[in-house]
Amino acid sequence: MGAAMLTDQVTEVLIPVAAVVGIAFALVQWLLVSTVKLSPERQPGGGSNDKNGYSDYLIEEEEGLNDHNVVVKCAEIQSAISEGATSFLFTEYQYVGVFMAVFAVLIFLFLGSVEGFSTKSQPCTYSKDKYCKPALANALFSTASFLLGAVTSVVSGFLGMKIATYANARTTLEARKGVGKAFITAFRSGAVMGFLLASNGLLVLYIAINLFKLYYGDDWEGLFEAITGYGLGGSSMALFGRVGGGIYTKAADVGADLVGKVERNIPEDDPRNPAVIADNVGDNVGDIAGMGSDLFGSYAESSCAALVVASISSFGINHDLTAMCYPLLISSMGIIVCLITTLFATEFFEIKAVQEIEPTLKKQLIISTALMTIGIGTVSWIALPSSFTIFNFGEQKQVKNWELFFCVAIGLWAGLVIGFVTEYYTSNAYSPVQDVADSCRTGAATNVIFGLALGYKSVIIPIFAIAVSIFVSFSLAAMYGIAVAALGMLSTIATGLAIDAYGPISDNAGGIAEMAGMSHRIRERTDALDAAGNTTAAIGKGFAIGSAALVSLALFGAFVSRAAISTVDVLTPKVFIGLIVGAMLPYWFSAMTMKSVGSAALKMVEEVRRQFNSIPGIMEGNAKPDYATCVKISTDASIREMIPPGALVMLTPLIVGTLFGVETLAGVLAGALVSGVQIAISASNTGGAWDNAKKYIEAGASEHARVLGPKGSDAHKAAVIGDTIGDPLKDTSGPSLNILIKLMAVESLVFAPFFAAHGGLLFKMF
Amino acid sequence: MGAAMLTDQVTEVLIPVAAVVGIAFALVQWLLVSTVKLSPERQPGGGSNDKNGYSDYLIEEEEGLNDHNVVVKCAEIQSAISEGATSFLFTEYQYVGVFMAVFAVLIFLFLGSVEGFSTKSQPCTYSKDKYCKPALANALFSTASFLLGAVTSVVSGFLGMKIATYANARTTLEARKGVGKAFITAFRSGAVMGFLLASNGLLVLYIAINLFKLYYGDDWEGLFEAITGYGLGGSSMALFGRVGGGIYTKAADVGADLVGKVERNIPEDDPRNPAVIADNVGDNVGDIAGMGSDLFGSYAESSCAALVVASISSFGINHDLTAMCYPLLISSMGIIVCLITTLFATEFFEIKAVQEIEPTLKKQLIISTALMTIGIGTVSWIALPSSFTIFNFGEQKQVKNWELFFCVAIGLWAGLVIGFVTEYYTSNAYSPVQDVADSCRTGAATNVIFGLALGYKSVIIPIFAIAVSIFVSFSLAAMYGIAVAALGMLSTIATGLAIDAYGPISDNAGGIAEMAGMSHRIRERTDALDAAGNTTAAIGKGFAIGSAALVSLALFGAFVSRAAISTVDVLTPKVFIGLIVGAMLPYWFSAMTMKSVGSAALKMVEEVRRQFNSIPGIMEGNAKPDYATCVKISTDASIREMIPPGALVMLTPLIVGTLFGVETLAGVLAGALVSGVQIAISASNTGGAWDNAKKYIEAGASEHARVLGPKGSDAHKAAVIGDTIGDPLKDTSGPSLNILIKLMAVESLVFAPFFAAHGGLLFKMF
Repeated sequence: MGAAMLTDQVTEVLIPVAAVVGIAFALVQWLLVSTVKLSPERQPGGGSNDKNGYSDYLIEEEEGLNDHNVVVKCAEIQSAISEGATSFLFTEYQYVGVFMAVFAVLIFLFLGSVEGFSTKSQPCTYSKDKYCKPALANALFSTASFLLGAVTSVVSGFLGMKIATYANARTTLEARKGVGKAFITAFRSGAVMGFLLASNGLLVLYIAINLFKLYYGDDWEGLFEAITGYGLGGSSMALFGRVGGGIYTKAADVGADLVGKVERNIPEDDPRNPAVIADNVGDNVGDIAGMGSDLFGSYAESSCAALVVASISSFGINHDLTAMCYPLLISSMGIIVCLITTLFATEFFEIKAVQEIEPTLKKQLIISTALMTIGIGTVSWIALPSSFTIFNFGEQKQVKNWELFFCVAIGLWAGLVIGFVTEYYTSNAYSPVQDVADSCRTGAATNVIFGLALGYKSVIIPIFAIAVSIFVSFSLAAMYGIAVAALGMLSTIATGLAIDAYGPISDNAGGIAEMAGMSHRIRERTDALDAAGNTTAAIGKGFAIGSAALVSLALFGAFVSRAAISTVDVLTPKVFIGLIVGAMLPYWFSAMTMKSVGSAALKMVEEVRRQFNSIPGIMEGNAKPDYATCVKISTDASIREMIPPGALVMLTPLIVGTLFGVETLAGVLAGALVSGVQIAISASNTGGAWDNAKKYIEAGASEHARVLGPKGSDAHKAAVIGDTIGDPLKDTSGPSLNILIKLMAVESLVFAPFFAAHGGLLFKMF
Repeated sequence: MGAAMLTDQVTEVLIPVAAVVGIAFALVQWLLVSTVKLSPERQPGGGSNDKNGYSDYLIEEEEGLNDHNVVVKCAEIQSAISEGATSFLFTEYQYVGVFMAVFAVLIFLFLGSVEGFSTKSQPCTYSKDKYCKPALANALFSTASFLLGAVTSVVSGFLGMKIATYANARTTLEARKGVGKAFITAFRSGAVMGFLLASNGLLVLYIAINLFKLYYGDDWEGLFEAITGYGLGGSSMALFGRVGGGIYTKAADVGADLVGKVERNIPEDDPRNPAVIADNVGDNVGDIAGMGSDLFGSYAESSCAALVVASISSFGINHDLTAMCYPLLISSMGIIVCLITTLFATEFFEIKAVQEIEPTLKKQLIISTALMTIGIGTVSWIALPSSFTIFNFGEQKQVKNWELFFCVAIGLWAGLVIGFVTEYYTSNAYSPVQDVADSCRTGAATNVIFGLALGYKSVIIPIFAIAVSIFVSFSLAAMYGIAVAALGMLSTIATGLAIDAYGPISDNAGGIAEMAGMSHRIRERTDALDAAGNTTAAIGKGFAIGSAALVSLALFGAFVSRAAISTVDVLTPKVFIGLIVGAMLPYWFSAMTMKSVGSAALKMVEEVRRQFNSIPGIMEGNAKPDYATCVKISTDASIREMIPPGALVMLTPLIVGTLFGVETLAGVLAGALVSGVQIAISASNTGGAWDNAKKYIEAGASEHARVLGPKGSDAHKAAVIGDTIGDPLKDTSGPSLNILIKLMAVESLVFAPFFAAHGGLLFKMF
């Protein structure tokens, strides 16, 4: 077997150090963003702008730097958005808090009841000759780690929202100096979020393991089983964040667009539109806070899945701490790699023209992937014994360290492939989106037909990429291979999140420019940032979905191991009905979320219409619209409407496991996984493509685009309809689906001992 | 064990007699339809109309009975539609014929190669002590039955089209006398198709079995394995019929609507629209011929699946002919039951008001299901031994005759449940469609969002119904239970098809009324028939999809048995990658078909616009448009575009089986099944709902509908956009998906011996 080169002591230092470095880096970025002043007293930017003479027209000259009123206005709008977002998140957390408390009690009761709340130690599941801590301890610590995960998720989402609402107006102000400055501000702010999240998630997990170890001692099996609660907590919170935030943002967005753009013919983000603040708040609570929680959940779950499988493999059995911490070391390396990568965008190169934005963001993906491959190699070489065994459904499989390297690396590279395919299908630089834009010539109907077809088609290569990763990593290192492949895909999460958060920040920046009445040149600059942001948002969603597929499968494997099932045979009726019902769940869930957005948008439309009709002078800009009522409509709708889909996801594993038992539940998980991934990918790509088809027509950057445009032409109107339909697809139902599949899997894993002991009531009765 | 009450001799007489009775009944109905004369010499209808004084305003008076010009015009239009449809089908059959010939050669080569084209008898697979016919014979007879299935499918589709194009103008003419008369004409014509198809399918299968038996003698295992080619042939033909017909009809429909209704503001089916003939031809080749082939395929496959499982169960081993023929006896009973059911619509009651149309059609479903339950009970009682054994993946399972009764009955009733749920979600008498219509208030975007959500939601109950059927029938009688459950769902196929075909016939009748320049009162009558037809078409699709799910699972089980796999374990990488890729295939397929419709529609739009702009006097009705060019565009597009999706479905099992082997193929089948069913149901219900939401606004039958309308209002325009998007969903991609899942399963079954012997090349190489 041989031991790892890295000693346990060094490992115990390295992980927290990497996390702290990441946090420090995030703070430095924050500091840099904060040098952009939002107070008009001092000249913004400090006048150190000796870098003039850029080639691109968007940055060839500085605009309105001395207009102090604009700065005041930006600051006002920013604080309105920030207040709205904070107040919504607090309301949301209150409601979800109650739910989480109840669920925590459920976890304790269900898991405690496995051995009748006995406090006696029990023979271990995988090594019957040893004694492990009682089920009651598992119940207690699972509950604790569940709450810890939920709180960490809340903190992640909240911090992300804070930095985003801190950065949006600053990006607007920097856009006056040029697109390059604005880009760096938006990107740095994204990086703050990315690094805080990745480092925070790692640090909390690391501390929790060490604290739990004080009680568990050598019972690593029990320790890491209890730690899975961390993933459950993170994902449960993420579900509500995504669904609630998604409904909020899209109700406001759709409502604002339908009356403002379509009926009243006023531009997007026009301050005369009563729903405009709600719309901008929505970007922050949905796309930022929701996505932050989501990716934190994926990260926590893939770590937990890897740890729980490792604990019953030779790492855990031999108490090889360094090898056991391999997943955490990979994440630590990821933070360092992403740190270097970020410097490429912010320090080593500078954006000088609009066309450089997308390539720069793409380069971030490529650089981080390339560097991380070396990083993975290093970690695999120094932290793993040259050969070890991995638990594989009842037997131990011999694995070499380079095989594990391949597992992580294939996950990482599959992520890149998914990212590029997503870019191809959603960026208006390529033919798919241009075809969709072209179909607007014949109206909204063909636009929708082409957009749906594009989304369906965009599923093909990602699924093959995921399938190949699964096959390779599964063949090399069983379920542990899948778990570390997922981790590999998420190892560059800091960069991924930075790119991802950059989008909504730019979107907001554009909104603020419009609302503050800045010149259309500023707006053009932020629009250019935003168009790239749409594509990167789609790429981020692609990553989130791809990693969710791998994570879910790893969790699924861990669940099956923990529930002591040896095969999940499709040819048994129990499993097959689970499979077909599981494949149906994403549809049920999407129906709920889509309908919620639709109904909330209808209410918003009515309110906006009412205000336009009843407040005199609103269209002339003489009277201020009642923003607060629109904010309230979005808040109420999302709080109320997030409960049923949330309950569907949270309760399904409990009901199926308790009534039908672990085999049917395994079928449900597999069905939801294979069906949900497809809908999630196609929904978010279809939405992204429609959005960019619209932007393609608006920008009019090519001969073809000019034929279709300009704004207000019939083709453009058709494109706006497509964009509006895409909103709930790409920002509500699509991205929530990857939480659905992950969450059901991790929940099954946490409750596995209960289901194994008391599940399948219905079949026992007959 | 005990023997069945029915002697073999009686069985051998009963089956063909039932088939012949069915055919005779169809001919009688045809004769009755033909009493409506299309020649103006004699007074149409014979003047025997002494049934006046109906309460409903649509039928309170007769209209334009003496206008001979109208009759001449109707006859002209009918013959144009009929010629167009005939010529398209001939072109289609030529191309598909080449494909089928090539595929037949492939079947022979692949299956012949299993034992190296040896002509020696081999030990049987399931009873090693006996000798079975050589693989070469299997190759030869499988090829023969494949061709037979394909030809029967062609005949089914063609005959359906013929009667439909024979009946459409007659329905229009009868509409002058009242809605009841028109209904009976349309429904009788549907019945002709239903009974011809059901009886023909049964008769050909019966004759083939008896002919094959001359060679196979007592080797029933080989005999019924060879017979599975019949299902493959039927479904292959159906695939091209559905896809080609679907593209044809929707390219024409979307193209005609986009220019005619949206741009030029002329009504649907206006003779000034150059695409109008192509549109009406499309209804006949897509919705009639395509659907006929599809349901014939389902019927053939479920019979084959049941027979092949039975042949390796005690029925086959003991050579118990009556019990072996149980599936055929169920179908025979189905013909008789449907015959009685039809009389309820045509003879025992009469439609007197528009509101009675939908209830009458619904009653057909209920009556046929109720009667058939008794029928199944009778057949199970007299044709089965009280106890027998069924092959269940390597072992024999003891089953009682009443258990098999439950299997068939649960399939039958699950079909009814699916039918009713479909009706609830697609009829504008209920709140879901009314909500969708209501969402048109805020434009096309919310209409699409609500429509998609409705489709997703409509999946829930059908999936539970299918899951329960699967669980019960699987638990009671293993894979044979599933096969007979599918057969149960299809046992009332004659009635189902009659209801189904009624829709497009009414649709065409309306078109002819419009084109012949008949009064708007006539058009209102046919519209009322058509609205009910939309719902029944959705119900028909629901049946087709539900039965396809059961049939595929049964075929899947038969494939697994024949390929000698004992478990399909999701937890092996081979199976899992199959599962996730399989779940992706319906998306790939839908992307192709949707895009095809979109592109063909774009071409059609350009041609129609060109004609409107370049032919002087066309809008005033002075110049005749060039219908032929539009027909050619649809024909060319559908012939060209049906090849790639067809090849995807036909080649996938061959490639996967040959390269990756039977386990991965099993995964692909399971994945495609559980994912395809959902998309198919949601796509066809979403489309149906949009169509009826539009009709709801147009009809203006309630206070709510009148607020949204009238024709031409903003809400109505939004509804038209939804309807247009729904066209390819409900008539091209949705219904083709059930063929995708069935066809891949039956193809795998036919090629199973080859895959088992030579498959998995890629894994063997490494």
